[in-house]
Amino acid sequence: MTFQAQILTLYPEMFPGPLGVSLAGRALADGKWACSPIQIRDFATDKHRTVDDTPAGGGAGMVLKADVMAAAVDHAIEKAAELPVLAMTPRGRPMTQQRVRELAIGPGVIILCGRFEGFDERLFDARPQIEQVSMGDIILSGGEMGALMLLDACIRLLPGVMGAPDSGDDESFEQGLLEYPHYTRPAIWEGRTIPEVLRSGDHAKIDAWRKQQAENDTRLRRPDLWERYKNARD
Amino acid sequence: MTFQAQILTLYPEMFPGPLGVSLAGRALADGKWACSPIQIRDFATDKHRTVDDTPAGGGAGMVLKADVMAAAVDHAIEKAAELPVLAMTPRGRPMTQQRVRELAIGPGVIILCGRFEGFDERLFDARPQIEQVSMGDIILSGGEMGALMLLDACIRLLPGVMGAPDSGDDESFEQGLLEYPHYTRPAIWEGRTIPEVLRSGDHAKIDAWRKQQAENDTRLRRPDLWERYKNARD
Repeated sequence: MTFQAQILTLYPEMFPGPLGVSLAGRALADGKWACSPIQIRDFATDKHRTVDDTPAGGGAGMVLKADVMAAAVDHAIEKAAELPVLAMTPRGRPMTQQRVRELAIGPGVIILCGRFEGFDERLFDARPQIEQVSMGDIILSGGEMGALMLLDACIRLLPGVMGAPDSGDDESFEQGLLEYPHYTRPAIWEGRTIPEVLRSGDHAKIDAWRKQQAENDTRLRRPDLWERYKNARD
Repeated sequence: MTFQAQILTLYPEMFPGPLGVSLAGRALADGKWACSPIQIRDFATDKHRTVDDTPAGGGAGMVLKADVMAAAVDHAIEKAAELPVLAMTPRGRPMTQQRVRELAIGPGVIILCGRFEGFDERLFDARPQIEQVSMGDIILSGGEMGALMLLDACIRLLPGVMGAPDSGDDESFEQGLLEYPHYTRPAIWEGRTIPEVLRSGDHAKIDAWRKQQAENDTRLRRPDLWERYKNARD
């Protein structure tokens, strides 16, 4: 099965872009996913192909028109009704690894990329199936970089894409914790040694040490994750 | 002044990539920022140009060698000692709009992109100036997409890059709140009207309404941000 990525954007030339090389690029060449950028401007109806207009009530920037965006979304859904529709917006729900995993076992995704000040809010009232998602608490020039990041996260989870089938279970966030720290050769580097336990060959001890490290680091670095983890465990 | 982006990566061909078009692309052409991808593999010392090795203690995947990574970072710092050094890792501190703003008024940034299972932890012990940052609680195939996202966020804030100089102050996260919803023409679309107040011309009323909407949406959609906002305000 091929994971379908339909990206609604004003800059279709950005795709597949960096997803055309490395792991994602090989998966694209192997037909494990397909990349279909769609030019939003093609759904404008006036002769200037206008996609935006000034904000009602005043203010800086331009707002993406609900009529044009809805026409683009409707077109994508018509082509592939089974795909979930995500809109990239800082007002959206923060993306999680759990949602990435759900998307990656599904048929694909339609991603609507915002630009300028954002979307006319009526788009979301009129098309409630659109899931508003945020890729982080920072402001981008548009949703395209967020879309690339989300697709990268999904593609690596597609069957046959990652080298080792068990890569992934121990990753950060998969168990609600940060991942434990890693070490590799040389055994001594700049006077620093690899922790003794990792060279012991005692797998139970190694697992216990890694769990302890993951818990410690999560508590110190990410009190927000740690609270959630503790509450889920208790 | 030109914002210097030095990116240490195994895939230099990914840069500038999507940052070569649109807003960031024009800023690049105008010399407002410079993009210098550096191939990490050039700092390997064996004839196979090895950058990774198996994890000490066992487990899936490969770990980026501390010696090679440190050599790459040292090279970048030697070229530009004034630049902050960020490493993309899910174990890092979540990137914030405040940190983006700090970076954007500075001379640039050195970004170290991870791949595989991550870095040998001794790299961070031995080079404490490296700031470990995470671009979101999801797992990528490498740090490159995160680097593109971070650079996009910085570049739009560089002087003269955004059209309107006051675009940005009202954005999500700038005041600790999500941004208020936007509307634009047509006044009626699919039977849905633009909120009355936005057509009133009464700017004090419009500002109050937008503030109220921003607060409501933040409380409902992002209780985590809302808690922080309330605590800062009280």
